[in-house]
Order: sequence, then C-alpha cells, then structure tokens
Amino acid sequence: MREIIECVPNISEGRNKEKIEEIIRNLQKTGVKILDYSSDPDHNRSVITFVGDKDSVKEGALQVARDAVRLIDLRHHKGTHPRMGAVDVIPFIPVKGVKMEDCIEISREVGKRISEELKVPVYLYAESATVPERAKLPNIRKGEFEGFFDKIKDPQWKPDFGEPVVHPTAGVTAVGAREFLIAYNINLDTKDVKIAKKIARSIRESSGGLRYVQAKGMELKDKGCVQVSMNILNYKKAPLYRIFEIVKMEAARYGVNVIESELIGLMPMDAALKSLAFYLRLPKFSAENILESKIYE
Amino acid sequence: MREIIECVPNISEGRNKEKIEEIIRNLQKTGVKILDYSSDPDHNRSVITFVGDKDSVKEGALQVARDAVRLIDLRHHKGTHPRMGAVDVIPFIPVKGVKMEDCIEISREVGKRISEELKVPVYLYAESATVPERAKLPNIRKGEFEGFFDKIKDPQWKPDFGEPVVHPTAGVTAVGAREFLIAYNINLDTKDVKIAKKIARSIRESSGGLRYVQAKGMELKDKGCVQVSMNILNYKKAPLYRIFEIVKMEAARYGVNVIESELIGLMPMDAALKSLAFYLRLPKFSAENILESKIYE
Repeated sequence: MREIIECVPNISEGRNKEKIEEIIRNLQKTGVKILDYSSDPDHNRSVITFVGDKDSVKEGALQVARDAVRLIDLRHHKGTHPRMGAVDVIPFIPVKGVKMEDCIEISREVGKRISEELKVPVYLYAESATVPERAKLPNIRKGEFEGFFDKIKDPQWKPDFGEPVVHPTAGVTAVGAREFLIAYNINLDTKDVKIAKKIARSIRESSGGLRYVQAKGMELKDKGCVQVSMNILNYKKAPLYRIFEIVKMEAARYGVNVIESELIGLMPMDAALKSLAFYLRLPKFSAENILESKIYE
Repeated sequence: MREIIECVPNISEGRNKEKIEEIIRNLQKTGVKILDYSSDPDHNRSVITFVGDKDSVKEGALQVARDAVRLIDLRHHKGTHPRMGAVDVIPFIPVKGVKMEDCIEISREVGKRISEELKVPVYLYAESATVPERAKLPNIRKGEFEGFFDKIKDPQWKPDFGEPVVHPTAGVTAVGAREFLIAYNINLDTKDVKIAKKIARSIRESSGGLRYVQAKGMELKDKGCVQVSMNILNYKKAPLYRIFEIVKMEAARYGVNVIESELIGLMPMDAALKSLAFYLRLPKFSAENILESKIYE
C-alpha cells in the first residue's frame, strides 16, 4: 500500500459476540485490512482497528456505522464507558503517504454520508473540529446519549452534519482526524513516586511542558520503581527522543537514573526512524532507507 | 511475507540490454519480488536484487543461473570487474523470519542443483564455506574464468558441488549465505584527513577494531570535511549505535565533532530498531511494535 490510513471506530457493544462478529465480517468485505478488534464487557464497548487507502477506509468506516446503527439500541445500553452513539467515535489517522489534511477531508465526507444515509447527527472533532470547543471528544460527549436529546437543541451544539435531531436508538456520532497516539512509559530507578510526579508535571502540556504530551507519575510496586506514564498525541511534534532525553535530564537532577522505557502497543515506523535519525545525526533518513518498505511498496 | 530472504545474483553481462531484460522477465515469472537491477557497462556486469520466501527465492536464483548460463559466453567476455562465471556469485541474505542457518541450507540446495542441472561447478562461500579459505569470494575467484581450467585441477580447489570440470562457456559459480551489508559513513568536522584515517584504523577489524567493520578515512573536498566510510558486514554483531558512538568518542579525542552520518542504500528495519532500542533503553522492541509490520504481515 502506497497510502495507509488507520481508522479506529469505537462501537457501543462489548458483550454480544454475535453482533460484534457480524460487524467485523461485513467490515472485512469492504477490502480494508483489520489489524485488531477488542471488546470490553464492563465498558460494553468494542474498539476496531483497521487500515486501508483513502477509498477503502471510507467504505470500511461507513460499513461499521451502518451495522452499528442497525444492531445497537442505546436505549438498552449500560456500560462504564461514556458514550453518545451506537458508533460512538470514528477517528482517521494518517500513517503513510497521506497528510493530516487528507484525513480531515475523509472525516468530513464520511460524517456527511453518515448523517445523510443513517440519519445520525455528526460532530467533527479533533483536527477536523470546526470550533475549538469540539476539538476534545469529552466536551462533545458530555451528557451522553440520554442528555443529547436536550443538548442538541442548544445552538452551540448544532451538529456539523445532519438535522439537530438525535437518532432515537443510535444517538449521535463524532468523526474526526487525529495523529497516531503513542503510549510510552519511562521507568526510573527510585521508589519515590514524588519524583515521577514532579517529572510528569515538567514534561506534560497541561502543566506547561511539551505540547501533545500527557503524563502522570505512578509507583510500580512489583518492579520496585516508579514510572512516568505518557500518551504522545502527536509524535511528529513531540518526538520520542526529545521526551526521553528531557525525562532523563530531569531525573538526573534528583540523582535518579532511567532504568528503561517501554512502548505500549504500536507506533508508526516513521516515529522510530525520526528518533534514530536524531541520535545518529542522519539528516536524510526515512522509510525509503528501510529494506522492508521497498519490499511492501 | 512472514519470511523474507534477499538474493543478489551478479551476472557477467552489463552491456547487452536484451539479454539482461530476458533474464529479468524470466525471473519475474518465478514469483519473487524484484527490488532492483543495475548494469555497469565498464564492469560488464549486472547486479539483480530480489526477495522471496524460502521456496520462491530458490526458484528465482536457479532461473537466473539457467538463463545466465544459456545466454552468456565467458570466452568473449571483457570487463573491468573480476569474474569466474556467467552467473558469478549468488548470495542469500536473511531479512525477516529466517535464520542464517536457513540461508546456508538454501545455498547448499541451490548450489547442488546448479551443478547437477547446468553442469557448472559450484563453490560455497561466506557463511556457507566448507573451509576457511573459501569464506572470502576474492580467494575463490582468483585466476578468474581463464585461470580456472588449471585451478580446478588442484585438489585444494575441488568444487563443493559438481565434477572438477569448468563449464566451457559459463565457468564456475560461488553460492553462499551472508548477512545484509550496510554501507554507513560518518562525516567529521575537520579538513585533516589524517584524523579520519586514524579513526578508521581504530574502528575496523583489519586493524584490530570491531569485527565485521571495514573502514577507511577520506577527504570530502566539496563538503570541506573528512569522512570515515564504512561497510558493516554484520549489523547484528556490529550495531550502528556502537559504531557511531565509538567514532564520536575517538573524534572527540582530537577535538573534532561528528557533523552527520549517512546511510548508502538500504538497511533492514531490524537494524534501525535495534539501534533505537539502545538509545531509548527499550528492552523489548522489535518489528512487532511497528504498525507497518502488522499491516504487511
């Protein structure tokens, strides 16, 4: 695939296996590649991860939306995770050969088609948001399915696509474009969790640190150390090497060493290569230099 | 592809486009993926790079050998590059999901079949060599096509496969397994080439440095700096980060900084990830953590 877009729809069904598998089967038929799907019965929610090119990813997202709206009735939905729609949120993520602008365009097209075909009002969020208050999903989702019948009448919460009328069983949906999120932790050679918390405050955006970094300090009792646990919301703007080196530097101030770091889940190859390029001072270094990229072109 | 083996046959024809393209066309039909082929008219030699799984890579290599033996007549071959066979050398390189032992096994099977089917004597070289004198290709190739009619009668140079009788038009062939070779250069912020030469001596195997590293110091007149130019014959044993950090350290001794490094051509993803894992102290880090690997699995 020369262009790769990832799509991670979250649907409000995490218990009924038959329904989930029907959604997956129909998604498969659209020609996308499903990387993963996992259901949480407590949350009563499933997260599906698939990739495709521009066209197939649109069709895949629409197919998930169609099936979720047909199969899920939010009037009878209970779960610990907040939700406002049968298909609650659909993010599009640029991975290879596409720009953020392409994903914003895709999110607008898919949002429009969901509102027209399925009569589900759509809010554009994240990079696709039309006003700042809609950038963050929790802002949109506040009040959840039950609260939206009132909320949608507020002119401030007029949907981006569709009439301001909540779908009676499928609620409303958020669609948007965002960067790939990397979950990255750094373990420190101390048992003093206050040090991890201080470093977390120095690195995270909300306390005045690096933009696009969320961080918290926590104790790892079984490992006998502490951890700075992070989400990197934009690895292009907040590269791994910079985060690692800042945490190492701040830890040194307390006489504390970095034991190791860990990646939870996946990251795009580009995120790895850009950090290696920093360390090896490789000015021209990209997937073009990687044998496997040539093979899979 | 879950398993990837690279094969880089060198054939003794770099001028006759029709013959080269016929060889490429027939190779294509075997189901391998051709990454590159390039011909040098002065050398009168072409280098073909393709990948495949265990089975397809064997068939691809055999097909190249068949066509080269049929189309190339070494009695009329002139070129600046030494050569001993119509298909001069066939290396197999483990890239993904296979071990060196697998490639040695493949080289033995392909060598045997070349000798039986094409009546071309075969020498196993590199990691496949049966005696130390055959590990390095120049040792085997010494005397070239013309000299082999005598050389092959020497019991020391009895072929590994086939009778000790040179093929009248296609000579003899070397087949073997080796690691992926990385061409890697580091530029230093000085015009004093003696410093680059000293550092090259400290890093390369032949002067007592790191095993699997070849290095020389040279001047880059147009850039106004000097370079330590290297071949890394085994990136698993001599990882990029170690080479970079040693060169940086040795340069500092002369008060010289590393400007940048550069990769010539390709490297396997694993080589990049292993070096990044060093810098970020990621104990568990592999292609499994890279999104694109999941996509192409």
